[in-house]
Amino acid sequence: MSDPVARLHALWGEIADLSHVSSLLSWDQETHMPRRGGAARAQLMATLAGVRHAKLVAPELGETVERCAERAEPGSALAAEVREARRILHRVTRLSERLARAKAEAAAQGHEAWAAARAARDFALFRPALERLVALAREEAGLLSRPGDAPYDVLLDEYEPGARAADVARWLGDLRRELAPLVAAAAHSARRPAARAASGSFPRAAQLAFARDVAERFGFDFERGRLDEAPHPFCSGFGPDDVRLTWRCDEHDFRPALFGILHEAGHGLYEQGLPAAWQRTPLGDAVSLGVHESQSRLWENMVGRSASFWRWALPRFQETCPGARALTHETLLPLLHSCEPSLIRVEADQGTYDLHVCVRFELERALFAGELEVAELPTAWDEAYAATLGLRAGDANAGVLQDIHWSMGAFGYFPTYTLGNLIAAQLFAAARRELGDLDLLFERGEFRPLLEWLREHVHRHGSFYSATELVERASGKPLSSADYLAQRRADAAEYYGV
Amino acid sequence: MSDPVARLHALWGEIADLSHVSSLLSWDQETHMPRRGGAARAQLMATLAGVRHAKLVAPELGETVERCAERAEPGSALAAEVREARRILHRVTRLSERLARAKAEAAAQGHEAWAAARAARDFALFRPALERLVALAREEAGLLSRPGDAPYDVLLDEYEPGARAADVARWLGDLRRELAPLVAAAAHSARRPAARAASGSFPRAAQLAFARDVAERFGFDFERGRLDEAPHPFCSGFGPDDVRLTWRCDEHDFRPALFGILHEAGHGLYEQGLPAAWQRTPLGDAVSLGVHESQSRLWENMVGRSASFWRWALPRFQETCPGARALTHETLLPLLHSCEPSLIRVEADQGTYDLHVCVRFELERALFAGELEVAELPTAWDEAYAATLGLRAGDANAGVLQDIHWSMGAFGYFPTYTLGNLIAAQLFAAARRELGDLDLLFERGEFRPLLEWLREHVHRHGSFYSATELVERASGKPLSSADYLAQRRADAAEYYGV
Repeated sequence: MSDPVARLHALWGEIADLSHVSSLLSWDQETHMPRRGGAARAQLMATLAGVRHAKLVAPELGETVERCAERAEPGSALAAEVREARRILHRVTRLSERLARAKAEAAAQGHEAWAAARAARDFALFRPALERLVALAREEAGLLSRPGDAPYDVLLDEYEPGARAADVARWLGDLRRELAPLVAAAAHSARRPAARAASGSFPRAAQLAFARDVAERFGFDFERGRLDEAPHPFCSGFGPDDVRLTWRCDEHDFRPALFGILHEAGHGLYEQGLPAAWQRTPLGDAVSLGVHESQSRLWENMVGRSASFWRWALPRFQETCPGARALTHETLLPLLHSCEPSLIRVEADQGTYDLHVCVRFELERALFAGELEVAELPTAWDEAYAATLGLRAGDANAGVLQDIHWSMGAFGYFPTYTLGNLIAAQLFAAARRELGDLDLLFERGEFRPLLEWLREHVHRHGSFYSATELVERASGKPLSSADYLAQRRADAAEYYGV
Repeated sequence: MSDPVARLHALWGEIADLSHVSSLLSWDQETHMPRRGGAARAQLMATLAGVRHAKLVAPELGETVERCAERAEPGSALAAEVREARRILHRVTRLSERLARAKAEAAAQGHEAWAAARAARDFALFRPALERLVALAREEAGLLSRPGDAPYDVLLDEYEPGARAADVARWLGDLRRELAPLVAAAAHSARRPAARAASGSFPRAAQLAFARDVAERFGFDFERGRLDEAPHPFCSGFGPDDVRLTWRCDEHDFRPALFGILHEAGHGLYEQGLPAAWQRTPLGDAVSLGVHESQSRLWENMVGRSASFWRWALPRFQETCPGARALTHETLLPLLHSCEPSLIRVEADQGTYDLHVCVRFELERALFAGELEVAELPTAWDEAYAATLGLRAGDANAGVLQDIHWSMGAFGYFPTYTLGNLIAAQLFAAARRELGDLDLLFERGEFRPLLEWLREHVHRHGSFYSATELVERASGKPLSSADYLAQRRADAAEYYGV
């Protein structure tokens, strides 16, 4: 009988390759595919998904994992591989092929219905497709849940393995309780950022040159990655040696491109830092969306919006981009730390972002606890926004139809954005304790020590530890909202005097 | 028992999809992959090839094809599908997995050895790898040959299904016999094209804009295709709705980019015209490399180098590209019909190109007839060039090391270039008979009638007919060298007065 570890690596290697191929096709679809190539592309993606699925559910794979389990020493890489492989196979093999297909079809139809509903600004056009998606997700949650699971635990687990809805509810509760008064105080503060300071003429090429330079200075390796224009910013990695970022440009406001690129570069640094030796094994990938998001938010917000970063960056920005010459530290920094309730999550500032997540989490939890039906969502949405952010959307596009996630059946995804904020803050505080005064480094343009710390404590571990363990080991304590809330309070004090 | 036709289409559809995915990854590798992404990409390609191979050799596929054979009416699409599927499966299933792997490895090593040999300008560094490739190709030819086949028939069949070495030898013999005196007469002609007319300042963007416009005017649909810069020009199609051309640019000579793009656009028009209804079946692809090459050469040479095309195009070119303002019909056209022996095939002019193919065909035939050994190749190469083109290479890079084909084990490929010329000329003559005065159309910039004719007689048939049948049906006679030689003679008379 052949060596089960070698066999596991051979079988899993193909599965990992097929995932990377699918990601590459998705990247191509967003960046280069001809306009009319969509139907054929959907077919290619379906075939790849089918081939990958067949390999995941093949009995030989499950048997090989169990043979590996018998010889895995506790704490070894093999034990971690077995844990990850079992987790992934549990999700895949519990779902019948019928349910997997129904989900894929409902997601395709849901996305179309959502786009049509947005075009008509009419939730009613999306409602039947969303009802179908919710029904299938409820069925899935039922099939996958283990004793003691709430239905929402199961949904969350797809994006943030091991996370519990009760913890997420507690953290989001902390944020709602603590952020709301800061937002209210900021609204009454005499200090207001001058939004027009970000406006001006920022030619595409100059924005790209500056942001690319910063990303490279952060440590993004353009010999193992690239940056392309696309309708929306994202990061795709096909192994650590081929990591691709996208950006989009507003020539009248430099912020979307710059902070979009720094955000995606944060994701990209994680991907480029994943362990080469564990590629094509269950330990080669990022451990969770929350940890992934922590890396993007850390570089975008904790580095990219800091005063010390801008002491280094502003002269460079002004040199590359004449439209930036009117900016000063005094006008720029408040602008990067605005705190003003708004309706659209993806445009929200750092001061209010998590309140948008609170709304979605509470609605999703109610949907899957059976306390809310899809038909009631638009009203519930508007009431939640009124209660949480004090705003009501003028139409469904600025309200319940704004996000793409539900149209694809992605329930349980939103909390990972806030988990990213919490993890980023906790990691950053730990790095600061260990590395000393990061501001002194940033104002000299030195970001490598921070990157090396993240490489050492986060990136190189791949999926060896669970996200929970990883954060605790890296920061010395279990995840909480404390460090993030301390940052929010410090920003409010600094920029709004509250 | 399920419907075998539906089953064939399901099984073959996945195989076709996997081919398209591999092509897309190759395109990406040439155009966008980060510099250090090569090793991971090779792994993705190997996995895809392995998955596709496993699907081709799965017993169910062969059985399904035979069940379809039982119910296929002669002359039906199903009968053609069975014929094509059997042909492809014959090649795949006869080769053991050992031989398939050995070929793939030898090709990878061969390519590396070839690159190293070129860097050192030393054939000796390539020789062992080439000997291995030839040995494997001889073994393959032995396994695949049917009664009555010459070994070279089997090699040719991979690129030009159904072609026979004896026919190719006859046609190439015609060309050698008839072209050699034309080349000699041109060399003694008082008329010489003024090569400097093509030199000047041709900015990249202007060259691209003009060539793109022409390709679009020919009928290339940029909603179902695109054009990117790459180290060498090629065309990849992933179904008719996603066809990608590449180009490269010389800002001092407009010819490589323009004729490269028109050539690849000819390939692309064929790909975009392949039958949508037969996609993902054995009939959905181009029928042969010779027919494919006929489409590129027809648009590049018979249209793109014609006086009537330039009556329409030159004013446009001059408008887009100031460097072209010094060109006149009188200086330009002789330049596009030069006839001068040279050492490098890919840089050869139309008047001498096929003589380069003659050399390669004769050497390959001798290699596989056991009349020549790899060690003797450099000398045989130089002697053949001296005899055929009257030139001797200064070093191996301009001689036996110039082409990439052998380094990848592609023996039997070169003749398809000349077949492309013959087929193009024969199709063009037939189109001219049916459509009347094409020059009158071209000088008005009307290329659609020609494209429609090719769509009707070539493109829409996919692989329904064999290449031989397709050419005979489209042109009304079996393939011969007559139309092509008539063109060569007419050009020599027009541009060299011989």
